[in-house]
Amino acid sequence: MTTQFEPLDSGAVPRYAGIPTFMRLPQAEPAEVDIALLGIPYDGGATNRVGTRHGPREIRNQSSLMRRVHHVSGLSPYDRARIADCGDVPVDPMDLMRTLDLISAHYAGVKAAGALPLTAGGDHLVTLPILRGLAADGPVGLIQFDAHSDTYDSFFGGSRYNHGTPFRRAIEEGLIDPKRFVQIGLRGAISDASNYDFAKACGIRMIFIEEFTERGVAEIMAEARALVGDLPTYVTFDIDGIDPSQAPGTGTPEIGGFSTREAQLLVRKLEGLNLIGADVVEVAPPLDPSGLTALTGATIMFELLCVLAGVVASKGGK
Amino acid sequence: MTTQFEPLDSGAVPRYAGIPTFMRLPQAEPAEVDIALLGIPYDGGATNRVGTRHGPREIRNQSSLMRRVHHVSGLSPYDRARIADCGDVPVDPMDLMRTLDLISAHYAGVKAAGALPLTAGGDHLVTLPILRGLAADGPVGLIQFDAHSDTYDSFFGGSRYNHGTPFRRAIEEGLIDPKRFVQIGLRGAISDASNYDFAKACGIRMIFIEEFTERGVAEIMAEARALVGDLPTYVTFDIDGIDPSQAPGTGTPEIGGFSTREAQLLVRKLEGLNLIGADVVEVAPPLDPSGLTALTGATIMFELLCVLAGVVASKGGK
Amino acid sequence: MTTQFEPLDSGAVPRYAGIPTFMRLPQAEPAEVDIALLGIPYDGGATNRVGTRHGPREIRNQSSLMRRVHHVSGLSPYDRARIADCGDVPVDPMDLMRTLDLISAHYAGVKAAGALPLTAGGDHLVTLPILRGLAADGPVGLIQFDAHSDTYDSFFGGSRYNHGTPFRRAIEEGLIDPKRFVQIGLRGAISDASNYDFAKACGIRMIFIEEFTERGVAEIMAEARALVGDLPTYVTFDIDGIDPSQAPGTGTPEIGGFSTREAQLLVRKLEGLNLIGADVVEVAPPLDPSGLTALTGATIMFELLCVLAGVVASKGGK
Amino acid sequence: MTTQFEPLDSGAVPRYAGIPTFMRLPQAEPAEVDIALLGIPYDGGATNRVGTRHGPREIRNQSSLMRRVHHVSGLSPYDRARIADCGDVPVDPMDLMRTLDLISAHYAGVKAAGALPLTAGGDHLVTLPILRGLAADGPVGLIQFDAHSDTYDSFFGGSRYNHGTPFRRAIEEGLIDPKRFVQIGLRGAISDASNYDFAKACGIRMIFIEEFTERGVAEIMAEARALVGDLPTYVTFDIDGIDPSQAPGTGTPEIGGFSTREAQLLVRKLEGLNLIGADVVEVAPPLDPSGLTALTGATIMFELLCVLAGVVASKGGK
Amino acid sequence: MTTQFEPLDSGAVPRYAGIPTFMRLPQAEPAEVDIALLGIPYDGGATNRVGTRHGPREIRNQSSLMRRVHHVSGLSPYDRARIADCGDVPVDPMDLMRTLDLISAHYAGVKAAGALPLTAGGDHLVTLPILRGLAADGPVGLIQFDAHSDTYDSFFGGSRYNHGTPFRRAIEEGLIDPKRFVQIGLRGAISDASNYDFAKACGIRMIFIEEFTERGVAEIMAEARALVGDLPTYVTFDIDGIDPSQAPGTGTPEIGGFSTREAQLLVRKLEGLNLIGADVVEVAPPLDPSGLTALTGATIMFELLCVLAGVVASKGGK
Amino acid sequence: MTTQFEPLDSGAVPRYAGIPTFMRLPQAEPAEVDIALLGIPYDGGATNRVGTRHGPREIRNQSSLMRRVHHVSGLSPYDRARIADCGDVPVDPMDLMRTLDLISAHYAGVKAAGALPLTAGGDHLVTLPILRGLAADGPVGLIQFDAHSDTYDSFFGGSRYNHGTPFRRAIEEGLIDPKRFVQIGLRGAISDASNYDFAKACGIRMIFIEEFTERGVAEIMAEARALVGDLPTYVTFDIDGIDPSQAPGTGTPEIGGFSTREAQLLVRKLEGLNLIGADVVEVAPPLDPSGLTALTGATIMFELLCVLAGVVASKGGK
Repeated sequence: MTTQFEPLDSGAVPRYAGIPTFMRLPQAEPAEVDIALLGIPYDGGATNRVGTRHGPREIRNQSSLMRRVHHVSGLSPYDRARIADCGDVPVDPMDLMRTLDLISAHYAGVKAAGALPLTAGGDHLVTLPILRGLAADGPVGLIQFDAHSDTYDSFFGGSRYNHGTPFRRAIEEGLIDPKRFVQIGLRGAISDASNYDFAKACGIRMIFIEEFTERGVAEIMAEARALVGDLPTYVTFDIDGIDPSQAPGTGTPEIGGFSTREAQLLVRKLEGLNLIGADVVEVAPPLDPSGLTALTGATIMFELLCVLAGVVASKGGK
Repeated sequence: MTTQFEPLDSGAVPRYAGIPTFMRLPQAEPAEVDIALLGIPYDGGATNRVGTRHGPREIRNQSSLMRRVHHVSGLSPYDRARIADCGDVPVDPMDLMRTLDLISAHYAGVKAAGALPLTAGGDHLVTLPILRGLAADGPVGLIQFDAHSDTYDSFFGGSRYNHGTPFRRAIEEGLIDPKRFVQIGLRGAISDASNYDFAKACGIRMIFIEEFTERGVAEIMAEARALVGDLPTYVTFDIDGIDPSQAPGTGTPEIGGFSTREAQLLVRKLEGLNLIGADVVEVAPPLDPSGLTALTGATIMFELLCVLAGVVASKGGK
Repeated sequence: MTTQFEPLDSGAVPRYAGIPTFMRLPQAEPAEVDIALLGIPYDGGATNRVGTRHGPREIRNQSSLMRRVHHVSGLSPYDRARIADCGDVPVDPMDLMRTLDLISAHYAGVKAAGALPLTAGGDHLVTLPILRGLAADGPVGLIQFDAHSDTYDSFFGGSRYNHGTPFRRAIEEGLIDPKRFVQIGLRGAISDASNYDFAKACGIRMIFIEEFTERGVAEIMAEARALVGDLPTYVTFDIDGIDPSQAPGTGTPEIGGFSTREAQLLVRKLEGLNLIGADVVEVAPPLDPSGLTALTGATIMFELLCVLAGVVASKGGK
Repeated sequence: MTTQFEPLDSGAVPRYAGIPTFMRLPQAEPAEVDIALLGIPYDGGATNRVGTRHGPREIRNQSSLMRRVHHVSGLSPYDRARIADCGDVPVDPMDLMRTLDLISAHYAGVKAAGALPLTAGGDHLVTLPILRGLAADGPVGLIQFDAHSDTYDSFFGGSRYNHGTPFRRAIEEGLIDPKRFVQIGLRGAISDASNYDFAKACGIRMIFIEEFTERGVAEIMAEARALVGDLPTYVTFDIDGIDPSQAPGTGTPEIGGFSTREAQLLVRKLEGLNLIGADVVEVAPPLDPSGLTALTGATIMFELLCVLAGVVASKGGK
Repeated sequence: MTTQFEPLDSGAVPRYAGIPTFMRLPQAEPAEVDIALLGIPYDGGATNRVGTRHGPREIRNQSSLMRRVHHVSGLSPYDRARIADCGDVPVDPMDLMRTLDLISAHYAGVKAAGALPLTAGGDHLVTLPILRGLAADGPVGLIQFDAHSDTYDSFFGGSRYNHGTPFRRAIEEGLIDPKRFVQIGLRGAISDASNYDFAKACGIRMIFIEEFTERGVAEIMAEARALVGDLPTYVTFDIDGIDPSQAPGTGTPEIGGFSTREAQLLVRKLEGLNLIGADVVEVAPPLDPSGLTALTGATIMFELLCVLAGVVASKGGK
Repeated sequence: MTTQFEPLDSGAVPRYAGIPTFMRLPQAEPAEVDIALLGIPYDGGATNRVGTRHGPREIRNQSSLMRRVHHVSGLSPYDRARIADCGDVPVDPMDLMRTLDLISAHYAGVKAAGALPLTAGGDHLVTLPILRGLAADGPVGLIQFDAHSDTYDSFFGGSRYNHGTPFRRAIEEGLIDPKRFVQIGLRGAISDASNYDFAKACGIRMIFIEEFTERGVAEIMAEARALVGDLPTYVTFDIDGIDPSQAPGTGTPEIGGFSTREAQLLVRKLEGLNLIGADVVEVAPPLDPSGLTALTGATIMFELLCVLAGVVASKGGK
């Protein structure tokens, strides 16, 4: 498949030159492409340290270092699908509930346009309205790479919509099938022993880092793949799933996480699933003096892009 | 006057030792003191870059470098008034309107307790609920050191309460007497030529940095003092009034601001006014790699403290 | 004059959202506008510390903080001229002489398209090929704000084209009229007592920081304006003219420079001159941990833009 | 067991709010608690790069991110023991020998009060006076996680008390039983081939990182547990045992260290030992631009706290 | 063997004192020593982000933390060979081709003087002229630790000499025997599927990080050793072979690399090979805020030094 | 006068190349030169934040940016005097009293060798043993640029030798004539109203920043020159005299200090005095992320060097 949606050629234009779009791709509308790269510059869902509103811009900046062809598969996503930077989703930094509506409407539009969305957050709350936009007609499966379960009920005596609660809300709203929901990389102390009760009661498969360390990537992902099966599934990658030495710039770091080498292997094992979209969230540039977190985020995004391009290729494109 | 509210003696306990309270003071309740040092860890009013929620903690940290006796006056505020760290004001990071109510109630309590509040923000929106707490019985005068007028009407098609609007709201609510309101240090481009219309129509005295540069500290402050007169007056110091070389860690920096040497002289010229409280806002530690902004903020806070201690002394203490 | 070339409205789209173009303007071709904002991501002319190749991108990033209407004039450049981000100029990081040709050809094209170029460098060598593109038909006047004269002959036993030599080359090539050439802000030790001989012999008016400090902005700029007169004149602003406290991120910092307040006043005094273009060079983001240098560069660029918009307005636009 | 010594509830007070005590706990005296969290802001024992005097304060700051319930055990230390921030130990930055006496007297007091001390250093010399305070009535066992043996004899021709010598002194003084002393994670070149002679002669069990890498956590810790047995044992964790990618802010970094995932598993294997106290030392905030080292230190401190709470629980509390 | 070429004694002169030479060694000429430590402060070969021109100075600075005796072998290189800091190689930052000639001439001189060179770069292009200087009389073997193959043909339509091409040039010039050339640690996407064609066609043994992860250090290095055999072999260590969490300061970082623990084991497995020199390249201090990359580089250099000292010892010294 | 003591030619060897000595000068012994550049890597006198032990090395590093000929005088110090880097003075980081003796003996040697010492500290305590070495035969005059008087009596209940006390000790020891002692730039709150009593009683002329701001450089320095007269005088420049925006990396920063432009003018007004040496102290690189403080320190050192070269020239050299 030939396509006009190619990254700038780094053999002609240096990587640091030009206005930074995701992967140095052209800008386009979702209707023009198979995969829409999107940013959600919003961190109003953060209960602690903020800064992920700057995530999309800095991930774009670091994504200039990405190249075309995956070194393991030998395939270029740009040969398999039409892909572009579809810009940032509208948000209202002063109004959380309005922002949720703006985001869900936008993703409903992306879905209607026939594009698979690959998103750079933003805090993890943004996955809730993404799912509202994508899963309006029935619950989907979810594979979540994360240090935290994000299935709290509320904070501060009333906040039900924040980055600690999106997946409880999504289950309550029928957006996720909890039997097809797996969380990988959980760790870190919790505020109360009951914090995991909801997740356990729902049947979410929670895989803690200790279990991951013992069983390894292959076994864990085989289980995850079996669990979500062939039905539509969304993937969400919280950058704090990765160890803070490789992703320090995030609001709620937990030591003892995935190495990036593990993270890359994990994502590659998503190949062939029936994915409807993916995101990378919680990259907070003001907490990232060396830029490494955004680089890690951009590379995970490229790995996810390769997987999504496989989905497009398997369906014959638009 | 002797008092038990003394900073830790740096000749006995090194400045880097111990749990950092404001000025290394004891912790106490407002009712126990003449001047209450307070933090408001809230930046939900920011329309652009965030991080001032970390301001109170880092200003406390840097305030360990402050000493007791002002080198110009030869006076120690701790000899003239009972002063303590009264902790952080309750906030709800997920609910702006509730936070405004929490803050205003808290400051009404401080006022009722008979203490003068000196606050470390937080974004500039926090001055609105402070004024609600302090000026419930009639408008007060205001001296504002700032790069921005903060008298916008709204943002994002509906946000009427953010750090660009507090003083328009305060005038509308009858908290500030616009004829006794002076803004010093304004500069920077504006979004629309009409941005200053409200301020001008109200009669706010707007002093731009260019006028300040020409006329000098003495002349400007003589005018400001005459304008607010002997009636109750509040002082708000936005750290972005100071040049970003000396206060880089702030969300909306504007080059060409006050030097700190000028800023100190400006604050000292408040001596003798009928002040009811003061604040230092918009210090954003995540944007402040060297810590200089918090140090500058802590020092301005100390200068304001000396002035407020003079107010207490002139009234004979509690 | 109404125009479709407006910055994104920050009251609708937050300043940190979206793909960062200069001043959050649309992208366009020079032929569509009166003033073309351009980046030259090249630092192959640096003899010492490098990094200005990243200048255009980071100045674009920080320029998101710029607003529309100048607070002193009350005018918006976007009301007076069509202005857009015209992208980065092609460069070859591995071939200096080819890069000079690429740049000069590009600026000849901008000139032919009828647009005034306002450029973000890049090291100071880039001003040479800009002048080749703009002054092919006869020497122009030059106002240079800079710590260094940049009129060396050569380095390393043969390098005649580097950021220490552009203005000697430009005079030799007949691009600058040395009698209409003024340098403001010079300071710092020199390598050899003969370093200024060429400049003196040519008749360049060299104004050192000590003279500037004594005589002040108004007097200095009156002389500079008289010197360049009504004939075509180019303006080059090396960020190291400004004090390194306000512009630390540059390859050859010299303490004791302009304050930004002075720098802004200096640029405003260019109003009404017959300017054919301007640049801001030597911003080196890798040496700028707080981003202040790029912010300063973006603001100086906005001040220059206001002046250039006046030129357009005085000529009735395109 | 119910206790009033609970961390602030992060569901009510945001983690960045308030004055930072260890784990956001109340302040109290050792006599009131089972486990006393203490800081020693002293780095006068450092022979090379300094800055650990700031360790306690920054570990307190980052410990705001800690939560209540360990995710593996499902237990909260605060349910099992009374725990508080008991402040910083008095030190004299200008007098090393006096500081040693101040520290040892303080820990003798903590012991007399019946509390187990958990300390944040400071450089590694502080463990010597801690042991003097705790082991006055006979040698104890020691488990040391560290890149360095710290059993040198002297530096600079006479300095016998510095962070390279504490464990030789402690053995000489009869504070440690060298047969019940194990060092884990040793690595890095040494100054002289004889550097390990004393440790070998004493019978200290030295486990280098290469042996650790081959044998793994379970086997190593089984041996360490057998070695110290049921008798009283102290644990000292030098943050430089961890790899500098995860703990860069330390004075003597050595590449190739423990991952934090390994470190957490190592500490958890201390469960059930007869521990009399523990420390985390050598966190140097000025060398830690991202704050990751202090976060790592705070988390290791939490892991140690959970183990110490088990000791308290097993003994029925105070 | 006794030698006057000893590092400063850190038990007498603190590590932060004095003028920083490599390993705190004396300065000398190559003819006086067995192993010459050299810097090449040149990054004119970089196609993307620059800064490695500062590598030699900052590696020297961090090498002050290195000690004398390897903790695994128990041997000191300074007991086995005469080693000194032989300064920086002459370069011309404005003339790439001249710089290649300057470097190759210098290394021919080092070889003629009978010293083994151990070099701190600079970008990876510098290995080409090093090989020209060392392999003039016939191709050598090469062991390359690197994320990238560096066997591109050209960039920017004509640049044949840059840090993406050195090993293609070296093969074309007969400096390397491609059958005795192994690359270890390759990873990261590539610009075009054909990028590895040349390397494959030549017979370079390319070991990707995935294969390395599966097979482990021992097996990989056994194969590498067998491949290069007893014939003269050069070793080049690109710091980006190591994971960017441990070496963030480099121009082309790729996540998922070697841990330093693996890297140290890899280098130690070079023991006994017939090495003619080695280098550590691509350390870029301006991109390394914590200094960790230079520390990692200095430590890898020390590991290589120990191996080279073994070569000298096996040959009986000069 | 011709001399072999010339800085490396930056037109031949790039400024970032080579082993960093002060001003890129040769290394030599004091007896070989007229002016000895020395480092004292010691901060054991600091009562608060440390790190100046790294000052000499980082000032050397940044001094690579210095050039040869002063731009105001047109003179090169290297034409007027033999100048070299004479290395670091021996210190014992673990023994303050021994270090004082090591330093004073060293400076007595420098004096005996007939060289004028120009020193980079270290904390301000180092000036005391320097004066012991230089003023053994009678008190000298002192011009001190500083935010602090440093005439405290003691700290921590017994420390009489620290960076807050050197000038009280020097007066007590008869090293300084208090009638010929002027302090310029004092500011910042003090710990007790009595802090300045000793200085006042002795007759030290204390010039606070407020007086300096009003009277200006020329008038202040005229008074200072008259006060010290023609007799031997030492100059000490504490970098914290300069504003922390231009010198953030120091242990006790005070806002509102000298600008560097003022500082340069101040130092130049020392021309013609009978100077016996000078120092620049309190540069703390770990607190200086951008390196600006060391650059400022290196430039002030160059200004002092020019003045000292004038002293040498006026006496006809050695």
